[in-house]
Amino acid sequence: MHYPVVNRNGTIITSAVTNLDIHDMSRAAKTYGVNSFYIVTPLADQQQLVGKITSHWTKGVGAEYNPLRRKALELIKIKSSLNEAAEDIYKKDGLAPKIVVTSSKNFEPQLSMDNFRKMLQNSGGYLLLFGTAWGFTEEFIGAADYRLEPLKGCTGYNHLSVRSAAAIILDRLLS
Amino acid sequence: MHYPVVNRNGTIITSAVTNLDIHDMSRAAKTYGVNSFYIVTPLADQQQLVGKITSHWTKGVGAEYNPLRRKALELIKIKSSLNEAAEDIYKKDGLAPKIVVTSSKNFEPQLSMDNFRKMLQNSGGYLLLFGTAWGFTEEFIGAADYRLEPLKGCTGYNHLSVRSAAAIILDRLLS
Repeated sequence: MHYPVVNRNGTIITSAVTNLDIHDMSRAAKTYGVNSFYIVTPLADQQQLVGKITSHWTKGVGAEYNPLRRKALELIKIKSSLNEAAEDIYKKDGLAPKIVVTSSKNFEPQLSMDNFRKMLQNSGGYLLLFGTAWGFTEEFIGAADYRLEPLKGCTGYNHLSVRSAAAIILDRLLS
Repeated sequence: MHYPVVNRNGTIITSAVTNLDIHDMSRAAKTYGVNSFYIVTPLADQQQLVGKITSHWTKGVGAEYNPLRRKALELIKIKSSLNEAAEDIYKKDGLAPKIVVTSSKNFEPQLSMDNFRKMLQNSGGYLLLFGTAWGFTEEFIGAADYRLEPLKGCTGYNHLSVRSAAAIILDRLLS
């Protein structure tokens, strides 16, 4: 998600889409059996850019060059907002997904990895959200159904890229 | 490592350094308490490029702009070969590190994640190798002290980026 996120000063911004997020995160999603990977930005030109990159690998020259990459990028759907992504799931599966937000900071009440892993084994759909830039606004985090516990390594340092964090969280939840 | 790796046709190549590998993998290394992150390429111009990027974030404008990024990129050492990296550890710690190679394919005999996790809790040093492009040559993999078991998700699809694979493996071994 590229909105509503904050920059290093805490100001609300719409962040730019990063090309390697598209590739790395769709490949991780495919590896761990995720149904859809939504890229959310309200900016029309950014949506067009993502569409261009994605269709190169799913329908263009890239699809033939690298069929494995195609399978991953076929999971991608471009949406303007969280609501649009949730509606897409509702239309397909007839259920309103629960919203689980990730953050590198602690927000209460927290959903542990262990509990979320158990929830995923039962019925129901979930939208797991990753914020770009310096992360989601506090208001947005507070409004989600669940706040996943932050990743911790084994040091005080906790500044992974969104690509690395998403890969590790999918592995912890679904491997 | 950018040599000796193969391209999609199995030909031995020296791959180009990817800017985001430098950032994502050093941040993951810092998060999980890794001592050093060696970027290995025999090409002088690629070594210079990595040096330029790294010093921007460790000594240049970037160091002041983003001190957390600086701490991660300070782990980086640029070397021409695996031997040079191993020598660097020997000079610092007085021990020859064991070489543990990763691959997305199965090579016997295999070291399981569980066993490697136990080995890391005992004394001794390890160099954990990640190959870029389509991975290491079979000869190189065969010559290592240990071959780590490949990552598996929960599907037949197994095509993570080297950045994602490194993040997940560090999490499994060191979290």
